[in-house]
Amino acid sequence: MTYEAPIRDMMFNLDHLSQWPQVSALEKYGEIDRTDARAALEELGRFCTDLIAPLSAVGDTTGAQLDGDKVVLPEAFAAAYAQFVDMGWQSLAHPVDHGGMGLPRVVGAAATEILNAADMSFGLCPLLTDGAIDALQLSGTEAQKELYLRPLVSGRWTGTMNLTEPQAGSDLGRVRCKAEPRADGSYGVSGTKIFITYGAHELSENIIHLVLARTPGAPEGHRGLSLFLVPKFLVDQDGTPGDRNSVNCVSIEHKLGVRASPTAVLEYADATGYLIGEENRGLEYMFTMMNAARFAVGVQGVAVSERAYQHALSYAKERVQGQAIGLDPDQTTAIIGHPDVRRMVLRMRALVEGGRSLSMAAAGWLDLSQNGDDDIRAETAPVAEFLVPLVKAFCSERAVEVASLGVQIHGGMGFIEETGVAQFYRDARILPIYEGTTAIQANDLLGRKVLRDTGQTARRFSAMIADTEAALQTGSAKLQDIAACLGEARAAFDTSLSWLLETAANDPRAAFGGSVPFLNLTGTLAAGWQLARAARAAEAEQHRGNETEFMAQKVTTAQIFAHHVLVECESDRARIMTGATSLLDEASQI
Amino acid sequence: MTYEAPIRDMMFNLDHLSQWPQVSALEKYGEIDRTDARAALEELGRFCTDLIAPLSAVGDTTGAQLDGDKVVLPEAFAAAYAQFVDMGWQSLAHPVDHGGMGLPRVVGAAATEILNAADMSFGLCPLLTDGAIDALQLSGTEAQKELYLRPLVSGRWTGTMNLTEPQAGSDLGRVRCKAEPRADGSYGVSGTKIFITYGAHELSENIIHLVLARTPGAPEGHRGLSLFLVPKFLVDQDGTPGDRNSVNCVSIEHKLGVRASPTAVLEYADATGYLIGEENRGLEYMFTMMNAARFAVGVQGVAVSERAYQHALSYAKERVQGQAIGLDPDQTTAIIGHPDVRRMVLRMRALVEGGRSLSMAAAGWLDLSQNGDDDIRAETAPVAEFLVPLVKAFCSERAVEVASLGVQIHGGMGFIEETGVAQFYRDARILPIYEGTTAIQANDLLGRKVLRDTGQTARRFSAMIADTEAALQTGSAKLQDIAACLGEARAAFDTSLSWLLETAANDPRAAFGGSVPFLNLTGTLAAGWQLARAARAAEAEQHRGNETEFMAQKVTTAQIFAHHVLVECESDRARIMTGATSLLDEASQI
Repeated sequence: MTYEAPIRDMMFNLDHLSQWPQVSALEKYGEIDRTDARAALEELGRFCTDLIAPLSAVGDTTGAQLDGDKVVLPEAFAAAYAQFVDMGWQSLAHPVDHGGMGLPRVVGAAATEILNAADMSFGLCPLLTDGAIDALQLSGTEAQKELYLRPLVSGRWTGTMNLTEPQAGSDLGRVRCKAEPRADGSYGVSGTKIFITYGAHELSENIIHLVLARTPGAPEGHRGLSLFLVPKFLVDQDGTPGDRNSVNCVSIEHKLGVRASPTAVLEYADATGYLIGEENRGLEYMFTMMNAARFAVGVQGVAVSERAYQHALSYAKERVQGQAIGLDPDQTTAIIGHPDVRRMVLRMRALVEGGRSLSMAAAGWLDLSQNGDDDIRAETAPVAEFLVPLVKAFCSERAVEVASLGVQIHGGMGFIEETGVAQFYRDARILPIYEGTTAIQANDLLGRKVLRDTGQTARRFSAMIADTEAALQTGSAKLQDIAACLGEARAAFDTSLSWLLETAANDPRAAFGGSVPFLNLTGTLAAGWQLARAARAAEAEQHRGNETEFMAQKVTTAQIFAHHVLVECESDRARIMTGATSLLDEASQI
Repeated sequence: MTYEAPIRDMMFNLDHLSQWPQVSALEKYGEIDRTDARAALEELGRFCTDLIAPLSAVGDTTGAQLDGDKVVLPEAFAAAYAQFVDMGWQSLAHPVDHGGMGLPRVVGAAATEILNAADMSFGLCPLLTDGAIDALQLSGTEAQKELYLRPLVSGRWTGTMNLTEPQAGSDLGRVRCKAEPRADGSYGVSGTKIFITYGAHELSENIIHLVLARTPGAPEGHRGLSLFLVPKFLVDQDGTPGDRNSVNCVSIEHKLGVRASPTAVLEYADATGYLIGEENRGLEYMFTMMNAARFAVGVQGVAVSERAYQHALSYAKERVQGQAIGLDPDQTTAIIGHPDVRRMVLRMRALVEGGRSLSMAAAGWLDLSQNGDDDIRAETAPVAEFLVPLVKAFCSERAVEVASLGVQIHGGMGFIEETGVAQFYRDARILPIYEGTTAIQANDLLGRKVLRDTGQTARRFSAMIADTEAALQTGSAKLQDIAACLGEARAAFDTSLSWLLETAANDPRAAFGGSVPFLNLTGTLAAGWQLARAARAAEAEQHRGNETEFMAQKVTTAQIFAHHVLVECESDRARIMTGATSLLDEASQI
């Protein structure tokens, strides 16, 4: 079973949900049109079908292996990575002046989806490099950019994020790694970092580690962290990697999934590092990188969901078993003919397309919020930032659900590793954990994005949804039905929001006890909203006689999401508003 | 991290939910009292903590291996199994006249939970043997019982169920395996059976396979299946295993979980088999066995949930990270202090205890329905049979959720295999698949248990819940709150039920499109009902001054279930009643 990039749906989302007219008009993207974007995605799609998708199984079986002080990936990975670099895929969404193709973020999101659907273990390497490029671009000196950006953008070098230590996971204030200033302006970085994705490997000529550490006398907690660039091989003035720096991989983890992605424990022993930006502002810079990474992890969720969906759909159409109820009792059927298998397949599709619409719409707003003029930035930034935790949490949590449905559709075969779908269930499980767990996203949403501006952005989000509902009212009965479901889900959001704003002041524990249900509610609502926008656009295209079957299906998928998924919002409202009392009841001894 | 059997909660369920006074008064159990039951469970608990729980990790890492024509389990399994037999644990819930301890079914359910919580891979062997014993007892000849029951009850021999073939999974009508009658009254059984749990191993002196096959000229489809007993070693008149029968293991599966449980492909080549019962009634006999096995799989779900819960609770109390919101900002906290971690832990507890209450209550009714006098049987059988698919589906689907929450609470460590909790997430995933997928349970519930008697039993189920609500109204404010939540969930059930009864007649595909949401709704309601009964009993005990802390916690757990889980019933109602239109919309090309 292979993988085909869902280019048609991606282009639909780009055309109708990503604010493409404004995005492509940004000065930064002066010469881009959608034909270029489509051509790039199609070529990437072919590359991934042919070269990357076949890596999944071997990567999962063999995994990354520590051999002496080197980390070895299955052989095919090196060849595929070399070709990935040759074709310039790492550069796709990076600026032209550092050697990039300069495509907008929404195209980058689609590319990230394709690559990670083909193989999440492979996709993690470029994903981390993207993050390092972003951080350097925003906070590096001109000299640092000159030296490091071009090889990173080309993919010849790769990047990593070094945050976690054994005692410092979600709580980065506990980081102990040290950086001692040296006479030449560099720093000696020492300490142990864990869970470093692609922290060690032989795919690239160099690895650029971005490391959180403390300078002598820095304040305690997260205000005393600085960010350092620590190359695996020290780089001379003309950019050639030379001496090995003293950062070593001491072990790699044996993991539930993404087994070909090496997760390293790195030991820094007075390794040469270079300060990025100013001292004690490391967490701030890292957050820039982390926000992009969080968004990308959401996209990985869409990716693994799409892959699981393609497998399940194909199996459901091939596997013959039983007679379909309500149809000819003498006729055997492929299992897709059974109403519940149909339900599972269509639920998977609704969740995949909902996640894609949410992430591609958010990509457009993120682009405008970072690259628009002052007015555009001011208008779009709050919404874009509001959407990031939703993309991360909705798409990652739903990926676990979708992968699990994929296993279920395969029945007993789903439990056999050779079938390949159990791997998606294992791979997907990291998504709600890394780059900030779902609970961390919930704190971000409730604390920073809702309470901090006393609900202003949240109310604007709700008003935008109400506008969509109003627009749907002028459409067909199906659109009106979707509007009604969306309205009910939005009412659950509004009621929860008021309760949370009121409660947080006096009883923050009660409010935050509902933070994850609120995140789930809001993410589900946001995805349903984007599918409702999609349905409206699709109906308009249908009326114009464009691809009427595809468009009719977009409408139905939105309706399935409305009937089967949006209904969960009301449960979450109840959990938030009545669930706090039992949750915090002292009779629960724990 | 070890495992401790939750004896206190089990005894609470036995005392208050399992109809213990009637059950223990059954003639079959004349001399049993609860002290014996408790003593047996406590001893089994110690045995499992000491000998079985440590097998999990090694069983998962090494797995079952095919070595030539033998299946080898990790060494420690053989020693543990021998001791299991020596201590007589296989015999716990089997009749005294075949060498059993003769404990009631509810005690058997608790024992199954303990064994499978300690290690599901180990627990599967006795579970299948239990099924073979049941089938033989019900349908075997006296001579067959004489020859085979005692060694099976002792555990010296083990049993298997052979249903599935490559083309015949959920659809057993497609079974092709053949049985040719021989002159001596035996049959020559030929064909390939797949997914045979413990189909080959060296733990026991003999393996008794129960095999579905077709005699020459038998009707097509499921009406032409007969059941055969095929021993691995042929047994002489005095019961001694002798010549090897021609059934061979040709391969074992490489699975997502329960890796130490060998899943065999068995090749029967004119193997000697003995007819059980009458020809062409095989499926009927197998269903008896399967019903018991379905119930037991539900209990396995409670088991793996409890194990995952114990791990997560322990980690959440140990791992220090961050400051708890709303408490002293200078004080670091174990993560249990964070409201969302508390929410996850308590949700896990509510789901575990809900599943245990549902299965132990059902065990009591099952016992009465099989061993009571005619009046008792007539009264209890419909309810007991109604509950079996609920136990299977609720406890197995929730096990996947609970195991996933357990991974989440561990954060990044949860994804590392050595932590041990990823194994529960992998092991649990088979539960909604084997012994009839969730969709098969849903067909059973809606087709056989609801539509067949035009909703009579379903309405009785609802009336029993209404009685519990009325009883709760005389209790504390907490009990009244639980009653209100239960009432809302029951209303969702009643409304769905009316709609399904009406719809099934004219549009069976629409009705069955909602079969799994209906199963989920009903299972959740049933578990919430049992916890509500538990809360009422606990409050009464509190008033009597008995174990007031434990009892207060039982009340709170029921309330958490009501606030956080029962609220899902309304979403399922909406899925059933409005979701059918979009689901069956022909615009959805698939």
